[in-house]
Amino acid sequence: MVVSAVAGPVERSALLPARARELFRGGLVTPTAGWCDGFAQANLVVVPRDWAFELLLFAQRNPKPCPVLAVLDAGEVSGPVLGDGDVRTDLPLYSLYREGEAAGTRQDVLDVWQNDFVTFALGCSFTFEAALQEAGIPVAHIDQGVNVPMYRTNRPCEPAGRLSGPLVVSMRPIPADRVADAVRITSRYPAVHGAPVHVGAPGELGIRDLSAPDYGDAVQIPAGHLPVFWACGVTPQAAVLESGVPVAIGHAPGHMLVTDAPNWRYQVP
Amino acid sequence: MVVSAVAGPVERSALLPARARELFRGGLVTPTAGWCDGFAQANLVVVPRDWAFELLLFAQRNPKPCPVLAVLDAGEVSGPVLGDGDVRTDLPLYSLYREGEAAGTRQDVLDVWQNDFVTFALGCSFTFEAALQEAGIPVAHIDQGVNVPMYRTNRPCEPAGRLSGPLVVSMRPIPADRVADAVRITSRYPAVHGAPVHVGAPGELGIRDLSAPDYGDAVQIPAGHLPVFWACGVTPQAAVLESGVPVAIGHAPGHMLVTDAPNWRYQVP
Repeated sequence: MVVSAVAGPVERSALLPARARELFRGGLVTPTAGWCDGFAQANLVVVPRDWAFELLLFAQRNPKPCPVLAVLDAGEVSGPVLGDGDVRTDLPLYSLYREGEAAGTRQDVLDVWQNDFVTFALGCSFTFEAALQEAGIPVAHIDQGVNVPMYRTNRPCEPAGRLSGPLVVSMRPIPADRVADAVRITSRYPAVHGAPVHVGAPGELGIRDLSAPDYGDAVQIPAGHLPVFWACGVTPQAAVLESGVPVAIGHAPGHMLVTDAPNWRYQVP
Repeated sequence: MVVSAVAGPVERSALLPARARELFRGGLVTPTAGWCDGFAQANLVVVPRDWAFELLLFAQRNPKPCPVLAVLDAGEVSGPVLGDGDVRTDLPLYSLYREGEAAGTRQDVLDVWQNDFVTFALGCSFTFEAALQEAGIPVAHIDQGVNVPMYRTNRPCEPAGRLSGPLVVSMRPIPADRVADAVRITSRYPAVHGAPVHVGAPGELGIRDLSAPDYGDAVQIPAGHLPVFWACGVTPQAAVLESGVPVAIGHAPGHMLVTDAPNWRYQVP
């Protein structure tokens, strides 16, 4: 088993994306936060061509949760920031949806692939986590070695045709005296969700219990830290689920597509 | 005739968008540069639903010429920044395309409208012209009272499905000692074409004769000024023409949709 070769956080962070994709293609299942320092990770969502316009329009109307990095042509399985990668095999874990129902996770999607599938890669907040850490702001789920906690909120996205659904957010506990810095730093990355959508007061977002995230793992919130919420790229999967798309694929939350694109590409001055 | 009521540049610039749209709806035909100071103008392109995904994808892949401000649902004729406006009547002049051929201009498109038409509004460089003028940088076509000159270039856009075509640019002569300022100022408006794509050397873009623009009017280039080129929202119309879209509508170049959205909305810090 290959896990032992990449057991430590140092090794994970130093890997090149092509090697990480190779490990995931070979069967390694793990959340990807902290992997491949300096390289952008992406949310994946794949829908049939018949739904592609509405999904692209949903993204255009909801740019904070759905910042589009790339859209492949129908049936295409690789792209310019993936080297010889294959979106059907190179993520550590996928979620499958059928007729608006979750249809389990799987390590590749070769057997359910259709030639009319259109693949969307969306920016991921992992891109700005390195910038937070460089500024001395702790990133709890990396420090605690777990997946980032994500929550469905009570905020509806702007619908697009047949597609509608709630905003999904990721949460990071931030020390109260660094909240302003966290806003400032992440706002420089508009293509990967940018500034937070909410600071503190989870009840206002309809989140009753921070310790029971809808996706990912709970993290401890130290005293003097506030829960800070960023728009999350799982949002289109919630829409696919809510809107009864006949068949769709997403990354399993936190188990991202690791691309060859450097993080700095998504930073504005 | 209503033209006399808005003959002067001062009157034009002071009008509210709803009043300008009313004048255009009533039959006034004029380029819109310099109209309705402080309000964003938009490029229009309308295609059948069958082509809408490819057009939105074309825009996503070519964000400098095609910055999407809004996409209406199929058949819709108004939107949030148009008050009680109607995209079928409220522009001063439209271009019609059929089977990849220009099919003339018209003052409204009521008789050719289809219920499956999807309307795209794209950012327009007129938005940053006020900022250039405020910085003391002359805008030749406004000063000379003509339409902005636009040119088809030899640069192909990134294709999307069946849609492909050349980059179209607008040109403003800028004093050599203000070129850097013009870059800096316009780069703050990424949603309305942003920084120039080319400075000087029109031959490199395949433009042989600046005095013979493909759209709009020629402007005089004073000594010591350089021709500076910005990506232009006529680009998707060039693609519609080149790609044989069965039927499509655009604004006539320079004759824009005047919206209720304030220009500052499109400025980044």
